[in-house]
Amino acid sequence: MKRKLLLSLRHSLLAVTCVLWSTVVFAQTDALPSWNDGAAKKAIVDFVLATTAQGSPQFVPPPQRIATFDQDGTLWVEHPIYTQVMYVLESVPALVESKPELAKVTPYSTVLELLKGDRAAMEKLTDADLLKLLAATSTGMPVETFQADAKKWLAEAKHPRWKKPYTELTYLPMQEVLQYLRANGYKTYIVTGGGQDFVRTYSEATYGIPPDQVVGTAGGTKYGYAKDGKPFLTKEPKLLLNDNNAGKPEGIHLMIGRRPNMSIGNSTGDRQMLEYAKGGDGARLSMLVLHDDAQREYAYGPARGLAQTKVGAFPQSLYNEATKHGWIVISMKDDWKKIFAFE
Amino acid sequence: MKRKLLLSLRHSLLAVTCVLWSTVVFAQTDALPSWNDGAAKKAIVDFVLATTAQGSPQFVPPPQRIATFDQDGTLWVEHPIYTQVMYVLESVPALVESKPELAKVTPYSTVLELLKGDRAAMEKLTDADLLKLLAATSTGMPVETFQADAKKWLAEAKHPRWKKPYTELTYLPMQEVLQYLRANGYKTYIVTGGGQDFVRTYSEATYGIPPDQVVGTAGGTKYGYAKDGKPFLTKEPKLLLNDNNAGKPEGIHLMIGRRPNMSIGNSTGDRQMLEYAKGGDGARLSMLVLHDDAQREYAYGPARGLAQTKVGAFPQSLYNEATKHGWIVISMKDDWKKIFAFE
Repeated sequence: MKRKLLLSLRHSLLAVTCVLWSTVVFAQTDALPSWNDGAAKKAIVDFVLATTAQGSPQFVPPPQRIATFDQDGTLWVEHPIYTQVMYVLESVPALVESKPELAKVTPYSTVLELLKGDRAAMEKLTDADLLKLLAATSTGMPVETFQADAKKWLAEAKHPRWKKPYTELTYLPMQEVLQYLRANGYKTYIVTGGGQDFVRTYSEATYGIPPDQVVGTAGGTKYGYAKDGKPFLTKEPKLLLNDNNAGKPEGIHLMIGRRPNMSIGNSTGDRQMLEYAKGGDGARLSMLVLHDDAQREYAYGPARGLAQTKVGAFPQSLYNEATKHGWIVISMKDDWKKIFAFE
Repeated sequence: MKRKLLLSLRHSLLAVTCVLWSTVVFAQTDALPSWNDGAAKKAIVDFVLATTAQGSPQFVPPPQRIATFDQDGTLWVEHPIYTQVMYVLESVPALVESKPELAKVTPYSTVLELLKGDRAAMEKLTDADLLKLLAATSTGMPVETFQADAKKWLAEAKHPRWKKPYTELTYLPMQEVLQYLRANGYKTYIVTGGGQDFVRTYSEATYGIPPDQVVGTAGGTKYGYAKDGKPFLTKEPKLLLNDNNAGKPEGIHLMIGRRPNMSIGNSTGDRQMLEYAKGGDGARLSMLVLHDDAQREYAYGPARGLAQTKVGAFPQSLYNEATKHGWIVISMKDDWKKIFAFE
């Protein structure tokens, strides 16, 4: 019975996919089919036309077309816990196995409790604990080892709510924006407060964004030689770039060297990046994703009187700044017809 | 008489140009026309074929094709003084004009003597002096101001020997390699010990390499607001990345995130980058430019028993390492049919 239902569902999905595909093929005018008509969709299309149409007074030559996107909460789900934090926490058992003396030491013992299901233990972890855990699980090894470990985890780990890999929890409307911009000569970058090396392990397969177009919080590496004389780099617990707040425009200058024409974020950590993009000459577009869809995703942020959370902080002051500077707020509830590709 | 000779010369040049042009059009098999046949040219062509031909066991997918080039002495002339050092020195008079109290203080007074023609004064400048001058002339201003100043200087300054702008003193054979690689799906990067912000001001117009594909010695910036509320970045005298020696592979990881398949350099500062590129799996190519053409360019480096110089250090040990690791040495004298486009 269940199997029949599944098969029938698959057939329906196939039919829907075919309809969607023919829609894409025959109605090429709409590059953003998962967006409802409204101010947000219009702002994106108007911006692209203004900066790319031949003869437009705000035309930007292709090599100068730069768009930057925050990652957690802007391109994919960040609740209830940032994906990279989950990676760090779930890397602790293997770490403790290799160093058993850590099992009874905080914060490792706290994480072991947490992973056994004691969610309250999460509250005990301070930012300093998380930094310590990050250093212990994500530095001290060759960069290739870290990349392989992170890829392996990402292939197996599942989001607690959707029971799907994190890389499938990207927002379809944002994937459309990335593709639409690239089809119009824009270079698309991720500018994330998350770890640069972590995000780089999935950015290309997940978003079509290569490693060198990922700007993130970055640690140092140390050059050295293996026993066979082959050179390699070891990840060091030394912070080079804290890619949050003012660190975002500073990181953009370091890694991209140009002020973005367009930027999308979703939290206080993106404020300066959005100001910086909007503050240049010519046509500019800064946008804020508002998580206001408790049913299809999550609802947080104050615009709808929702409770403030530690993940994806979005206070009223940020909403006020958006209004003041003409940033466009994207309502997930109202602006997005579909949120995920699998829906 | 002189004029007639000149006219006749121009006609000959035109004829030669037409012949060259038709050679390019009709014999498209040679993507490197300024290279003489030899081991260096063969190594480049073999490497590109091995990594890009469909079905090759060493095939590399396009997004993973990475080639890194040192800049001074590899892509353009670095003698008698690095171009950026000239920029720093020639920026001192304007600095002293705005701060007259510096006129009698070293190292500013030493630079003023030097610019009046006392070349011996150059010997007095220590590395610490140069760092001080760099901070004084190239930090403390908005990034856009620095970019505009550097561009203005580059448009006006001339190399003492050829009396031509520095940006015309690029090596034609290397320009051909850059284009050949890009035509075959390679992303080309500059990885320079020079200042990242300085090199970025000319890399796109000079080499077709956009700012985000320039990795260089980088200082920090500081985010702030102008009086009208517009956000901008100020260049800070804080070193983020010393992109020399081991700093080159470390900078490559920070900015590119992938081990290069191919790399070309010309001095000890490139040693680790060449080791790193050559040390990966699959087909690898590392090359060293040997300056052995005193007539058409300069001769330095020990391979031909030439005197060691401070600029572009290339000791015998580097030559030995090249031989040991299978790096290909490019002899400017023997491998390059033409050195400059204007010849």
